[in-house]
Amino acid sequence: MEQQPNTLKYKHLGIYTQNENVVYMHEDCHVCISEGFEALTRIRISKASQTIVASLNIINSDMLLPNEIGLSDAAAQKLNITENDNLYVSHLEPIESLSHVRAKIYNQKLDYNAYHEIITDIVQGDYSNIHLSAFITACAGDRMDINEISFLTKAMIASGEQLNWDKNIVVDKHCIGGLPGNRTTPLVVAIMAAYGLTMPKTSSRAITSPAGTADTMEVLTNVTLSPEEIKAVVKKEGGCIVWGGTAQLSPADDVLIKIEKALDIDSEGQLIASVLSKKAAAGSTHVVIDIPVGETAKIRSMEMARKLKSHMETVGNAVGLNIKVVITDGTQPVGRGIGPALEAIDVLKVLKNEADAPIDLKERALLLAGELLELSGKVESGTGDQIAKQVLESGQALEKFIAICKAQGRFTLPVLSPFKIEIKAQKSGTLKRINNRKIAKLAKLSGAPQSKSAGVLLNVHLGEAIEENQLLYTLYAESKGELNYAMDYKNNHNDILTII
Amino acid sequence: MEQQPNTLKYKHLGIYTQNENVVYMHEDCHVCISEGFEALTRIRISKASQTIVASLNIINSDMLLPNEIGLSDAAAQKLNITENDNLYVSHLEPIESLSHVRAKIYNQKLDYNAYHEIITDIVQGDYSNIHLSAFITACAGDRMDINEISFLTKAMIASGEQLNWDKNIVVDKHCIGGLPGNRTTPLVVAIMAAYGLTMPKTSSRAITSPAGTADTMEVLTNVTLSPEEIKAVVKKEGGCIVWGGTAQLSPADDVLIKIEKALDIDSEGQLIASVLSKKAAAGSTHVVIDIPVGETAKIRSMEMARKLKSHMETVGNAVGLNIKVVITDGTQPVGRGIGPALEAIDVLKVLKNEADAPIDLKERALLLAGELLELSGKVESGTGDQIAKQVLESGQALEKFIAICKAQGRFTLPVLSPFKIEIKAQKSGTLKRINNRKIAKLAKLSGAPQSKSAGVLLNVHLGEAIEENQLLYTLYAESKGELNYAMDYKNNHNDILTII
Repeated sequence: MEQQPNTLKYKHLGIYTQNENVVYMHEDCHVCISEGFEALTRIRISKASQTIVASLNIINSDMLLPNEIGLSDAAAQKLNITENDNLYVSHLEPIESLSHVRAKIYNQKLDYNAYHEIITDIVQGDYSNIHLSAFITACAGDRMDINEISFLTKAMIASGEQLNWDKNIVVDKHCIGGLPGNRTTPLVVAIMAAYGLTMPKTSSRAITSPAGTADTMEVLTNVTLSPEEIKAVVKKEGGCIVWGGTAQLSPADDVLIKIEKALDIDSEGQLIASVLSKKAAAGSTHVVIDIPVGETAKIRSMEMARKLKSHMETVGNAVGLNIKVVITDGTQPVGRGIGPALEAIDVLKVLKNEADAPIDLKERALLLAGELLELSGKVESGTGDQIAKQVLESGQALEKFIAICKAQGRFTLPVLSPFKIEIKAQKSGTLKRINNRKIAKLAKLSGAPQSKSAGVLLNVHLGEAIEENQLLYTLYAESKGELNYAMDYKNNHNDILTII
Repeated sequence: MEQQPNTLKYKHLGIYTQNENVVYMHEDCHVCISEGFEALTRIRISKASQTIVASLNIINSDMLLPNEIGLSDAAAQKLNITENDNLYVSHLEPIESLSHVRAKIYNQKLDYNAYHEIITDIVQGDYSNIHLSAFITACAGDRMDINEISFLTKAMIASGEQLNWDKNIVVDKHCIGGLPGNRTTPLVVAIMAAYGLTMPKTSSRAITSPAGTADTMEVLTNVTLSPEEIKAVVKKEGGCIVWGGTAQLSPADDVLIKIEKALDIDSEGQLIASVLSKKAAAGSTHVVIDIPVGETAKIRSMEMARKLKSHMETVGNAVGLNIKVVITDGTQPVGRGIGPALEAIDVLKVLKNEADAPIDLKERALLLAGELLELSGKVESGTGDQIAKQVLESGQALEKFIAICKAQGRFTLPVLSPFKIEIKAQKSGTLKRINNRKIAKLAKLSGAPQSKSAGVLLNVHLGEAIEENQLLYTLYAESKGELNYAMDYKNNHNDILTII
């Protein structure tokens, strides 16, 4: 078939760039020359009715012929490409919604339509990392008022699939991160589903922490399920614990979270919109939000926590959710493990009522499950905690948890990594402080969450009397390089644990 | 020679990505696996004592062997690479100055040290586009106070070379952009140098406009000179008109300007720091700043202009410059040409005192040259304008201009492109309004400034009586595609010129 103008023949190059769309064209390519394309120009590439936007890299070797075009793996996948496909390339029409981003940079208030246009273009993949980072930054630091946060949340809900469970009550919970090891979600889902409530839980992967619930659950079962598969699991077992990304719920959130991760920020407006848009899109009706407060937690003061609680409740109501926000202790990690596999071990110990199960993780899960039972109206006020405890200690929750995992495709026991170093106390005293951020950083440097079995296994709690040479924690990694890298950090920071 | 751990053999791939550093490694590469590198991880790459930071792309084809490493052309050039060099790769240590960027995102004031650390890391190339965009955005929209703008300016001066001319008086001028065709700089330099003053002018390329002074001058002479070459030109002729980028003056500015261009913003703080850091680093002592004001100029109101004037003067004094800020008419383009070659033609016509030289461009250049003569103290107050006029009309300025161009390496006459379309009036009336932004956009879509001879040649001025079918302007492009693209825009915007 003869090539049309602006049409090039696809050649597979095998370049993996995560989610970033890159297009490769030869410097002598007639389209580049006639259209005036330069390296890093963002251009539109179409195959039949499918279209993506990609950044141009120019090839000046024999890797491509002048009439050929290459794509990064992610871009090729989005266009469903096969070798020798003809691709049509064209100028990217101006992205109109960037004028709203500029208005936001200049401190103007945006209305619903503006947020809707921005989020629609982001989901289409039209924004570069530069545009995304500017949008995130312009919305951070209290620059969105409460109405704008509601607009953003609604726009994010509208940007993806919305699930409908045909139930009057669909419960959910969320913890505003920052507390290493705080893996209550699998426990709460198991208790609620065992009690007969519907809890289709979609979780994120880690944003800036060593593990998100989805990362931890992936050790035990499959978390990447299609919306149809999720429906089947929930129909069968009343609950699920899956990654929210592939479910196409609030897809803008997944794009924005990557940028927030690169910046290592998590601003209030984006945080509220991220959490509540996922909940509403997942079809939840009754939601408990846990805000841990502590000097080194994400939320550092009661004042910030109360403000966030109030904003969460206002935006939650604006998007039609019944919300209860609980402020909890965030002064130290919860459970013993920090990192996907290590946290999965803690969860199983609590479910199995083992003697050495972390009591703090158990109590926190019961508190949240109790609040959720009460918010749902299914149990009397003041009885939630006790009912949750009974469901857990009777073994019903464990049974339900294993059933959910199996319905999601497998139930696998966690395995620890052979590369480990034990860190012991250099003096005796009392453990006065645990720096949540630094202990999380240590777990991240050791490879978590990408390396599932990497992380930190804590052996001590705040207020404990410590003997010299007592084991404080064990560092796990999947490679020697990562273990050394974490040790470098540990050796340069003597305030990860403070013993006085 | 045996390879050390973390050492890989360089292979040339021929991938051009402008200034972006990309590193390519095979998915089976032992370093990727042992270090836990993933696609888009930012890693450090060293050859002997030279080091850069690059984003990783993972190759899963036979383009590279597992023990080989590829680099984008820009990255290879920065490391001075030859085939088969051994390169050492390592984790990127945490970028400490990003904590200041986060503080700025959260609306905190930064001190000099914070700006200095940020700018140092930016010049080293440690920031990704995401980090750069967040820094730009966090500093935009009045988020820097006047002290912070001074700190940023000083940090930018300190980040690069600083020239010293061994003269008590070194003059300079700058126009706060936004006015298409306003190419007074070459005229002012020619007049000042002809009068015996020292004016070593370094200019930017276009940020968001169809041509910067450096783009226009590049049509007539070389503008990419080393600091040594610049010194030689100025010693010989008293003046130069070169691009500031390669001179390594305020190199952070060149990095930040690319991000501002992608965002299509130009915030007050960055603008002041950009302009004044270049002036101070270039060794200037007396500087005239021109701020054109108009509805569709960069500065839209007298109020904004007066605020900018006051901030410019404060920061200028803080960094040791004698400054005069002049507010001028910005309601329409200056001269006839918009685009590098078209503007170069206007400049030459004025210098040659040709009958059809654009009178508005000439008058504006004389105003600025007059102010600068007076600011320098070399002429009496009130006489600058007349003295400048005499230097220009006597032909001394032309002679000096040609001498400067030749000292910079060549004097080439501009050539126009064969691809052009004449735009005629569809009705008669009076030309009431010229939209500077839209006419600039038209010139950009036609290919300016990358295509030197592309742009718009205006045939009319504000207030002129227009006959039906009279020629309004001519569009020039270097390719048919670009001409069509500009025409599409023209056909969709009927308010580029308003005739009533």
